[in-house]
Formats: sequence, C-alpha cells, structure tokens
Amino acid sequence: MTRWTLPPGDIPAAWFNIAPHLSSPLQPPLHPVTREPLAPNDLAPLFPAALIEQEMTEAPWVDVPGEVLDVLRLWRPTPLVRATRLEQALGTPARIYYKDESGSPAGSHKPNTAVAQAFYNAQEGVHRLTTETGAGQWGAALAFACAQFDLECMVYMVRASFEQKPYRRVLMETWGASVVPSPVGQPDHPGSLGTAISDAVRDAAGRGDTHYSLGSVLNHVLLHQTLIGLEAREQLTLAGETLPDVVIAPCGGGSNLGGLSLPFVPDTGVRLVAVEPLSCPTLTKGRFDYDFGDAAGYTPLLPMYTLGHDFVPPSIHAGGLRYHGDSPLISALVRDGRMEAVAYPQGKVFDAALQFARIEGKVAAPEAAHAIRAVVDEALAAKETGEETVILFNYCGHGLLDLSAYEAYLQGRLPDERG
Amino acid sequence: MTRWTLPPGDIPAAWFNIAPHLSSPLQPPLHPVTREPLAPNDLAPLFPAALIEQEMTEAPWVDVPGEVLDVLRLWRPTPLVRATRLEQALGTPARIYYKDESGSPAGSHKPNTAVAQAFYNAQEGVHRLTTETGAGQWGAALAFACAQFDLECMVYMVRASFEQKPYRRVLMETWGASVVPSPVGQPDHPGSLGTAISDAVRDAAGRGDTHYSLGSVLNHVLLHQTLIGLEAREQLTLAGETLPDVVIAPCGGGSNLGGLSLPFVPDTGVRLVAVEPLSCPTLTKGRFDYDFGDAAGYTPLLPMYTLGHDFVPPSIHAGGLRYHGDSPLISALVRDGRMEAVAYPQGKVFDAALQFARIEGKVAAPEAAHAIRAVVDEALAAKETGEETVILFNYCGHGLLDLSAYEAYLQGRLPDERG
Repeated sequence: MTRWTLPPGDIPAAWFNIAPHLSSPLQPPLHPVTREPLAPNDLAPLFPAALIEQEMTEAPWVDVPGEVLDVLRLWRPTPLVRATRLEQALGTPARIYYKDESGSPAGSHKPNTAVAQAFYNAQEGVHRLTTETGAGQWGAALAFACAQFDLECMVYMVRASFEQKPYRRVLMETWGASVVPSPVGQPDHPGSLGTAISDAVRDAAGRGDTHYSLGSVLNHVLLHQTLIGLEAREQLTLAGETLPDVVIAPCGGGSNLGGLSLPFVPDTGVRLVAVEPLSCPTLTKGRFDYDFGDAAGYTPLLPMYTLGHDFVPPSIHAGGLRYHGDSPLISALVRDGRMEAVAYPQGKVFDAALQFARIEGKVAAPEAAHAIRAVVDEALAAKETGEETVILFNYCGHGLLDLSAYEAYLQGRLPDERG
Repeated sequence: MTRWTLPPGDIPAAWFNIAPHLSSPLQPPLHPVTREPLAPNDLAPLFPAALIEQEMTEAPWVDVPGEVLDVLRLWRPTPLVRATRLEQALGTPARIYYKDESGSPAGSHKPNTAVAQAFYNAQEGVHRLTTETGAGQWGAALAFACAQFDLECMVYMVRASFEQKPYRRVLMETWGASVVPSPVGQPDHPGSLGTAISDAVRDAAGRGDTHYSLGSVLNHVLLHQTLIGLEAREQLTLAGETLPDVVIAPCGGGSNLGGLSLPFVPDTGVRLVAVEPLSCPTLTKGRFDYDFGDAAGYTPLLPMYTLGHDFVPPSIHAGGLRYHGDSPLISALVRDGRMEAVAYPQGKVFDAALQFARIEGKVAAPEAAHAIRAVVDEALAAKETGEETVILFNYCGHGLLDLSAYEAYLQGRLPDERG
C-alpha cells in the first residue's frame, strides 16, 4: 500500500461552500409551529451567530479560525491511502484510494465539525453544549472538542446503546462529559436518535447558558467536513491522478459523504455515490418532503429525503446511519441527479469489512464498511469492463469500539445477514 | 499542540543495533536443560535463521527489508507531537514531546516487530506462528502481521483476559487468528504470561510447519522497535531541538522502552527512564540473575532483572507491564547505571491519564499512561528548578480497548488506588 501525507501546516485555510454551486437554491427550513421560512434569529436560542451565518451563507469559501486549526493539527491533514493489496486481491484494473479519517482522537471524521462548533460557542460566551448520540461516535467527538475549549458537555444517548454499548459512554465521560439515557424519564423506552434530539434541544432551549450542537444534516456541519475532500484533491494530485472517476461514502445524516464529495460537485464528470443501509433506506426509498429532524417535532422542518420523523429503524450496527432523514444539501443533489444512492444489507457490508480487514489490515467502523462494500462492487465492475476506474472513498472511522458487531458476524449471529 | 510528520518514504532504512555500544557484552542465554551457553542452532525449532542472526549480531545497523517497509508504510513514520497544552496546564518551562505509536492498525507499537517477524518466517517457508498474549495488544499485532503475509496465527491468551476482555480476542479473530485460553486443559486456572508462553512454545516446538514469536524481551524485538527512536531523533531536529534531556517510556518486557531509548544510549548526556507498575516492580525491586522467560521453564535462561519466573503479578489494567522479567538489554543498561527506573501505583497512573485525556485530547493505553505519570512529575520538577528540560516520551498505544479501566477509575473502583 502507498500513503500520501501532508504536513500539519497544510490543512486547508478555508472551508468549501457548495451553496453557490447548486443548480437552484435550497428551499429554506420552516419554523416548526408557524411553518414560515425560518429567520436567523429563530435559531439564536440554539446556535451561535457565527454558525447561523455559516448555515445560510452564499460565500464560496469560509475561513477556518486559527484556534480551530490549532486543534485539528493534532491529527490533520489525514492520510490518503491507496489500497493496492485490495486491488490485487480483486484482480481489478481500478485504482482504489481512501481518505483515512480514523486517526482523530475520537476515531472518526466527527471531530472536524465538533471542534469548530465548540470554538464558536466558546467564543460567544456559551458555557455548556447539549447534543444527542446514537452509538456514541458523535457524542465522543463533541466531548473531546468541549474539553479542548473548557465547555461543559451534556450528551443524551439513545437508551438501547447506553445500556448495551458502555464503552463509548466511558470515552465521553473520560473527556469529562455527562451522559444520560434518552428518552429522559421513560426507563422502558429504548429511544432513537429522534427522541435524543428532542431531549437535547429541549434542554438547550430552556437554559440561557446552553446551546445545542448537531453532528450532521445541517449546512454548517457539512461545510466543516469539506476539509476531507479538499485535502483528498491535493493528495490525489500528489499520487499522480487528476480527478477520481467516482467518489463513494456512507450516508446517514450526510456529513462524511458531504465532507468528501462536495468539493467534487463542480467537477461534472466525477460520479458521486451515497451508500446507505437497506434497513434505513432514506435516499433510495424515502420521499422528498419537508419533515422534522426529531421525533417530537421541536426542530425546524427541513426539505429532505425522509422515511418520516416517527420512523424507527432496526437496530443495525451502523448506528451512525440510522437516521430517518438526510442532509438537505445531499437530498437536493440526489433529487437533481448529481448524486447516486445505493443501499446494502448488513451481511454484505460485513463480508466486505472482513475482506478489507484481512487484506488491507484495518478494521473499519460499520459505517465505513458500507462504503467498502460499494467500492468492492465498483472495482469488480471495472474488472468486467477493463476500465482503470479511479475510486476514492471515505474511511470515515475505525471499528475498535464496534467489535461486538464483528463478533456477531464471525459467529453467524448478525441479523439482516444477506438482505 | 504542534506535530511533526515525515513522509512515508522516510522510514529509516536500517534498524539501530545497541550491541556494539554496550560497555560490556551481554551474558549469553543458557540452555534450559544443560545450562550451557545457547548455540544458534538451539533456537532453530522456534525462530527463522534471520531472526537468530539478529538476536546475536554485533553489526551496528541491520537493513530493513523492502517487504517490511511496504507494510510499515501503512502508518509509519509516526508523528512526533509537542504537548503544549499540557505544558501550559502544568505551568512548566519543560518542553514535552511524545512519539505517537497509537496509529498502527493494532493501536500500539507492537506491529513494528510483528511485521518483521512475520516476514522473516514467511520467507523461510514457515506456515504458522504461535504466540502468547495477555490483554491482547501483542496478539492483535501478530494477527494483523500474519494476515499481511498469509501465515496462520495461533494465540494463547491468558485465560482471565480471554474471559473478561473479549474485544481484543475479537480483533485477533477478525484478522483471521485462532485464539484459545491458557493454560490449555486447565479451565479453572486464570493463567499468566508465563503459562501462555509455555503453551505457545510447546505448540511450536512440536510441529515442523510452526514457529514461535515473542513480542518483547529478546534482542531482535528491541532491534525492530528502534525505528521509534530513530524517527524521533530526526523529528526533534525538525522541531528545533538538538537532543532530549530525558527519554521516558513504560517498561514491561522492554520493547517500547528499548525502541525509543536505545538510539539515545550513545548520547551520554541524555537521561533514560523506565517506568513500571509498583505491583510488578521488576527493575526497581527484582534481582539481576539468570531466569526462565516462562512459568514452566521451557525457554532459555536469560540474564535479567526478575521477580522469579513463578511470580504472578496482581491483575492491574496495564496487562503489557505484567511480566516477571525484563529484556536482557534493558536489564544490563539499568545494572550499569545508564538507565534509571521508577515505579508507580495504578491510581496515580490513571490520575495522569485522565489529565492527559482532557488536556491533550488523547485516551492513553494504561501502559502509555505509566510514562505520562512520570512525564508530569518530571515537568513539575522542572517547574521547581526553572529548567527548560526537553522531555521525550513514548505514547506507545491508545486506550480505546481499555475503557473498562477508565470506567473503574471514574467510578472509584480501581484497585491499588494510591499505592
């Protein structure tokens, strides 16, 4: 395998904003009660002014503050790796590259936005952030970021995960966060991301010293993640490539997919592919409509592909992909035909994850494994046609805190084995 | 924080051999039955010729094979990081640098030698390797390396860990290894590294297609780990330093300590410090003598600091530091006054680990946390004297598979709380 790095001083100095490149402007979010387009001020109880501005800006680039770069430099720029051993094992003429986002302290791409959000909130004088988390990837990222900027962090964790997967909770607590099971006060309810968002928003809205933080879906979150794709562009050049033929990433709320792929949207020859679980097929089976981001209907209505805000997906291991809706940006790109979407059953995803672990040596998060599944199929298609397809995918996190999923797979106990 | 990287092409091309720099030659290992000095041929049932030669060579440098570099390049060179936030929090004039070995697929420095050992065995036509593991760091590293060279891997895991810490077992199985609890055939015995070595050596000695692999202690293991210190020297220069004043690393069998510190042995002004657990105080309380490496007395007798080969240390969380003996190289350096040793109780170690996690953002393996404890004390001493001490330490692994230890600490359930 071959790996391209960039020195810590070479993190891009600005985030890439896709908004001015869209074929038509995004439909605005609507107020949950009045159903009128949201004014910036409506978001002020939850978010700092800088993030509200980023949510709505049409500026093509947004500067990354130096204080944010200082923290990101702990692990960024992340490496671009060519999976030559996988290519050889598949016998494909395709060249497979992946952006390795697993080296952050929290083990995923999530800190890219957590650090920025914690910074802007601290700068505005906020003392405490609330958020929700499913399996814990996002909660861990925000706990890490809050510790860096001396903010209190309160995480509402889906109760089923809180009880069954204690280690990401311990990780959050190690970084000083408080973690409680959601829904609060309903000890027999297993919870969902929707209920946890409701708990976190209600907490933040009710306290003057507290804001809310979301780890995906919103425009400013995807904006912060574009460092992934910007670095990958530069590293592909170092690797002797011009552009990828296809960019592949898993999609739950859309942040790691958006982070890698948005900088390639203007390159019209580059295919962009979202990979989602067959058990939560938002982009492939959902409808495009306004819907709430949470179960209780506290959040604004967003224009997106959705399975309905009361949809409760099966308890698959890729907790980060279990969300009823999708980023409005990603949804618009899919609706307009600029992005494709595919869905895979969990068993086929883990077939590919095990193959990748043994051949390339890295144990992927179940979310990242969705991308690997699609990459293997794309590489096998290239073998059929003989094309030297250049594939770029997002290895968005490692699976070291998801080994119970691998254990279930190895023991043949994985639900949704073959779809 | 600030971080210095090197491009993947800049892994050192040769390992550094400390043997010709020692003030007197190492005493030879003795045959376990005859108690005569061991001949190279005595080791042939267990090790390939290339490793036996490395075990005994006086050559100052040993070339790293290209096939080994090809795999190491997946994560090496590893970053050197300056812990500026920790310096500020402590108010110390010391400058604290750490070599971050946690980015390997197995999460520790262990693959540095696992890859080399797997390569030389594959090259000699061996089909299967056996080894022992405690908490699983070494077993995971060898499982990863064997998958890279298409070798079967059989891991004898200390039964107490096999039953209580399933996730590193799952990690090994994900990479294709077989894992069984040790001692074999004694289901009520909790096991120890000593019993597991006995099981692994007996298995290898009894089969013509199988060799044995050891993750620490031996000269060739420490040789392979010297890439850590060689890279750190180069990176310290990039950081504007000449030499460190003090080099600190945890010490179990001695491989991560040797890897970082051996290249600095000829620099007589550089202090070298081994950190061990107070509950397994080999260097600080052991005697220097010939002793067996395993519990059953199958291995050669090695000249080392030892607590006795039947010593069973308490079940602290730093599984990698629970070994009754120590590398003969490290033992000789300590005996001759070239290296210091300190011991800490587990509670004080985790005090420092939690401080490091919240300030520097990284959750350390319990082994690495021993070094962090000593670094904090060294930095506080520098604060007293006002000296700008340059401290270099080995962050030899992350703690993402040791979160149960952090949970125990956070809940006040950690044994050996304050020593």
